[in-house]
Order: sequence, then C-alpha cells, then structure tokens
Amino acid sequence: MTGVVPVPGDAPTSTAGPVLVIGTGLIGASVALALRERGTEVWLQDRDPEALSVAVERGAGLPRPAAGEPALVIVAVPPAAAPSVVIEVLRSTVNATVSDVVSTKARLQREIETSGLDASAIARFVPGHPMAGREVSGPAAARADLFADRVWALTPSAATDLTRTRQVAALVESLGAVPVITSPDEHDRAVALTSHTPQVVASTVAAGLADLGDTGVRLSGQGLRDVTRLAASDPGLWAEILASNAEPVAGALDSLIDRLAAVRDGLRAGEAGAAAVRTSLEAGVVGHRRVPGKHGAAPVTWAVVAVSVADRPGELGRLFADAGATGVNLEDVRIEHAQGRPTGLVELEVSPESASSLADGLRTTGWDVRF
Amino acid sequence: MTGVVPVPGDAPTSTAGPVLVIGTGLIGASVALALRERGTEVWLQDRDPEALSVAVERGAGLPRPAAGEPALVIVAVPPAAAPSVVIEVLRSTVNATVSDVVSTKARLQREIETSGLDASAIARFVPGHPMAGREVSGPAAARADLFADRVWALTPSAATDLTRTRQVAALVESLGAVPVITSPDEHDRAVALTSHTPQVVASTVAAGLADLGDTGVRLSGQGLRDVTRLAASDPGLWAEILASNAEPVAGALDSLIDRLAAVRDGLRAGEAGAAAVRTSLEAGVVGHRRVPGKHGAAPVTWAVVAVSVADRPGELGRLFADAGATGVNLEDVRIEHAQGRPTGLVELEVSPESASSLADGLRTTGWDVRF
Repeated sequence: MTGVVPVPGDAPTSTAGPVLVIGTGLIGASVALALRERGTEVWLQDRDPEALSVAVERGAGLPRPAAGEPALVIVAVPPAAAPSVVIEVLRSTVNATVSDVVSTKARLQREIETSGLDASAIARFVPGHPMAGREVSGPAAARADLFADRVWALTPSAATDLTRTRQVAALVESLGAVPVITSPDEHDRAVALTSHTPQVVASTVAAGLADLGDTGVRLSGQGLRDVTRLAASDPGLWAEILASNAEPVAGALDSLIDRLAAVRDGLRAGEAGAAAVRTSLEAGVVGHRRVPGKHGAAPVTWAVVAVSVADRPGELGRLFADAGATGVNLEDVRIEHAQGRPTGLVELEVSPESASSLADGLRTTGWDVRF
Repeated sequence: MTGVVPVPGDAPTSTAGPVLVIGTGLIGASVALALRERGTEVWLQDRDPEALSVAVERGAGLPRPAAGEPALVIVAVPPAAAPSVVIEVLRSTVNATVSDVVSTKARLQREIETSGLDASAIARFVPGHPMAGREVSGPAAARADLFADRVWALTPSAATDLTRTRQVAALVESLGAVPVITSPDEHDRAVALTSHTPQVVASTVAAGLADLGDTGVRLSGQGLRDVTRLAASDPGLWAEILASNAEPVAGALDSLIDRLAAVRDGLRAGEAGAAAVRTSLEAGVVGHRRVPGKHGAAPVTWAVVAVSVADRPGELGRLFADAGATGVNLEDVRIEHAQGRPTGLVELEVSPESASSLADGLRTTGWDVRF
C-alpha cells in the first residue's frame, strides 16, 4: 500500500469524532478549524493556556473534557515533544487512532516501537506529515484551508493497523489534502533529497556570497536567486529539522559532495576532465526530469513569451488581463527584475503551440513583447 | 573605475561608426540590429556566408567592405575562436577600439596580453560580457532589444585605455544595457560564485533524484523546483563555459564542499554538532542578504498574499486585473502548482503595509485568499 490513495467517488466530508487535537499551534489549530467547518466534534488540548484559549475563541473546538475517549487524536506538538506525547496518548486510551505531524518519521516510529507499549497500542499509531506551512506560527495564524491541495504523507510501518491508516487517510482527504502513503524510511530519504538537501545547498551557496564585492553581486541573475531563495529560512527551526533526519541528510550530502568533487576535479584536469564535467551535467538533466511539474506530472518545457513591464501599479494587472483575453492558458509566470532600471521583464510560460498567438495578441494591445 | 557607469543626463542615442560586428550569431546580430535602429553604420563579417546573409537580410548592416577601418569592433564569435579573432583585428587595424562578448574574462585577457601585440594595440581592447541571452541562437533569433535593461560587464585591465573603456560603455548604454565595470579577475570570481556554482549545484542536486521512487518525488515542494531549475540547461554549452573559468569555479566548489562537509559532520556528531549546523545556516542567511532583489537593491522581505486559482484559461488574467484594481503594486509573483489537483496557488508578493488592502480587495471580488 504505497502511493497516492485514490479519491473515492464520494469523498468523505466529515470525520467521525470526537477528534482530539493536542497542540493548538498553526498546524493543530488549522486541522481543528477544518474539522469544525465539516461538523466534526473537536477537543483541544495545549500545555499553554493562552494558545488553547485563542484556539477556542477562534472556534477551533472546546477544551478536552475531563472524561471520555476521542475516536482519533492528532498530536501537533513541537518535534522534540512528540514522542512522549504520542506514547502517553497511546497509553491512556483504549481504542483511539493516533497520528502526528512531525516532518521526519523514522526516529519517531523507532521511539514508539521501543517504548514498551504493547503491539495493539503501537498498531493504533499512524504517523503523518502534512507538507504545508506558513511563514507565521501560532493559533491566530491558523486557517481551515491550510491543507487544501497539499500533499500529506502517511508512513505506516509493518506494525501499523491498515484500517486505521485508511481512517487517517480519510481524515486527511476531508481536510482537502492529498494523502500519499509511504514507509518511514522512504519518507525520510525522500525529504532528505527533496527538502533538506536543497535547504543546506541554498544556505551554503548563499554563505559563499558573504565576501563578494558589491560590483560582483551585480553580475548575478535569476539563477542565483532561485538557488539561494531557501537560504532566508529560520536557522533555529532548520537546525532542528536537519537534526531529526540526521543520517539520511548526511548520506545525501555525502553523495552530493562526491558529485561536486567530480566536477571540481574534472575542471582542474583541463582537457582530460572535460568528459567528466559533461557527464555530471548530463546526469543533472536526467535527474531534473524527476522534479514534479504542474499537477505532479512529468515537467514539460514551456515556451517563454517575455514582456517588458514598467514598474507602476496596475501594469501587471493590465498585462494579465490582456493575456487572458487571448484565451491562452498561462502555465507559469516569472518576473525578472532588471538591474538598476525601473522596469521588469515578465516571462509568461505557455505551451509551445500557443506561444505565437499569445505574443501576437499582446503586441496588438501595445506590449513590448520579446518572443 | 569600478562599479556602475553613471547614466549621463543626455544618454547617447547613437554611436560614431562604422561599427564592425564579427560573428553574426544571436549576440552579434542583436548588437548590429540595435545599432542600425539608432542610425549607426554597421559592417558585418562572418565566416559562415549563410549566417552573414541572414543578418544582412534582417537589416543588421552591410558586409564589411574590402577597404576602410571601423571606429569600433565587436567580436561576437564563439569563445574558443575569440582570442585569435581579437588578436587578428588588433593587428590589422590602426586605431579601432575592439571589444568582445565572451562570458569569462581573465583567460582571454591573458592571451591578448601575451600575444606579442604592442602595448598600444593591447590598450585598444576593452573586454565585455553582456548578461543576456535566449534559449535560441543564430541571427534569425536576433532582436534589437535583447540587451534592454541587462547588465553588460566591461573588464578593462591596467593595460586598457580608459577613454576607450568610456567609448564602449557609451555604446553599451546606447543599446539600452547597464554597463558595470570591474576587473577580469573580479568578474570571473563573481560569475563563478553567482552563475557557474549555482549551475553545478543545480545539476548535482538534480542528479541525486535519479534513483528516488515515484512516491518520494511526490513529497517534494517548491524549494526543490527552485534549487534544480538550472539543471535543465544544455550540458555541452555549460561544460564549455565551466572549462573557460575552470580555476575560479573549482575554487568556489572547494569552499562549498567544505561548508557542506561541515554541515554533514555536524549532523553526524549529534548534540555535539548542533551548533555547527546552526552556524552554517546562519551564514546562509547573512549571504542571502547579498543576493540582489528588485532593481539591484538589497532584498526586501515582501508580504505574501496567496490566492487559490482554478486551472482554466483566463483565471490568472482575471486575478491580476482584480489585483490591479486595488492599486497595490505587485513586487513579485510565484505560482505553486498543487500536487494532483487541478488548481494552483498564486503567491502575490507585495510590500507588508499594502498586503491587507490587496487581500481585502481580492476577497471582495470573490477570490479564495489565504492571508
């Protein structure tokens, strides 16, 4: 049972409750709000009474009652606290299904399975990881639609009850998310490659710019912006995330360092190393085809219709209105800001066969089109 | 004389000719077209008679006459041919200023200075590098506005005549580009850090995805797309570019590998390595501030107003028209395509103080705004 859970003809619109949400930060409160919107009874618990009361005031649910067992528990506490909270919940309930939202899965699963809990309790734990978040935190920032269209990984192990995995997958779908089921190890290796390594790379490439002169910095283009965008992330948060997936990330960095060293050595070898450099770049082209494009499909090469746009309010709006009037569907949009000039170049990406009609249509309405 | 050449009150609109353009590919023919538009006499030369006749037919100039010396020569031949062509032109002319468009500068400058040319001939050479290009090549793809708002580096050495540097800077400005003056070594070190290393990183990170399963790939997000975008570039072209700047790139990769190894070792050291990991990420935040934002200014943190948009023709147009009607200036736009769902999330980046009015305005017109 690996892959995308098929969407049933009649997607569930409510989950049988009560659902207990432990930890009413951004993720927990957003889950609670979404469940309340769909009519599910929600209980809330947080060691911080302030966070709890904000969540209650926002209509995310009611404080957990002194007695009674929930049908399902979502543990949405910080990563370091998650193992002990999950173990405590499994211990203190008889039949509740328990899930979590920690961003790496193998370590937590190991801690649960070696906790001394009996097998029937361990089988009630369905580990989860919603691929959603915002730049802000806390229950005040929570939104019922935070998970809409987002992937939500579920990572049952051999010890996990399949029926309970289906139960959590249905809850995830009812939040508007897309459940993707994989194993804890495969999950951690995947996020090491697709999320954690890119973060480390962005940070270490950006760190290399620290001693570059102002003029040197002006010679950079969109490529540098793309590669270093993640480097602005919060170091404290990311140090924790990386530590929680230490060995898969370290292994991915081992391989990356080997590939970088092959390019470096090839460059230093001159003519004799040219083939090695080229082979490395070709491997990148092959790997790049695996990066999901639109709708998770294989990436397509779009045609680019570039338009020069003045830096004035409303110009982008006017451009997109005119582009919309051509009937061509825009696949992607990039704005490349010019260096030292008050204009930008907007790159409209469209299917190759519709590029000419978009370019012609925009020229007709007076745009400076470069195609 | 380093930095941006100030734009004079009356920017030159034409360059004293004749200007000889050697090599009528994309760059050369685009320079020629732009000069012709401004009324400058242009002579064209290309060893490929087919390319030459396409350029002439497109109105880029006339074939070089048998006799007569040009005022200025732009050598726009492939990198491997550039040194011998520049040397030949300096040898066969008496007073012409000569420039080139090769994307790395130190090696070419060395070849010119050790060519046996006398000092007065070497002083007439002003090396250049326009930071512009397209995915296509050849004179048929040339455009007079290819360089509009683009940085065009000039890298005079101690041997270069300052007056001639000014002459080429004026020509660059007349093409609509922004001349940035630096030394050959500083240029090459800068592009190693800001262009060549990002390319190698994108390729090597993407190469690591080759053996990731389909489910693992689905767990990737926008960060991976950003970091690996450049990996789709042409391996043959990039192998040549990297070879032409081999030692600066190899040196940049040495430093990058050291920084990656520090993170990897920190992760493997557990608690004892936590501080080292965090320090590396913090260095990335500092370096990221050097990445140019809009208008080459220090990057600003914009507020993000996310809007859910259906995958239908015209939806983006309608969104931007409504956004334009709010009077808020959009600073940047990103489209995050949802996994497995026919909608996308459009992130509108605006100044923090105008985010609320944009969000409110879009909600009023019926958009699903996440802010």
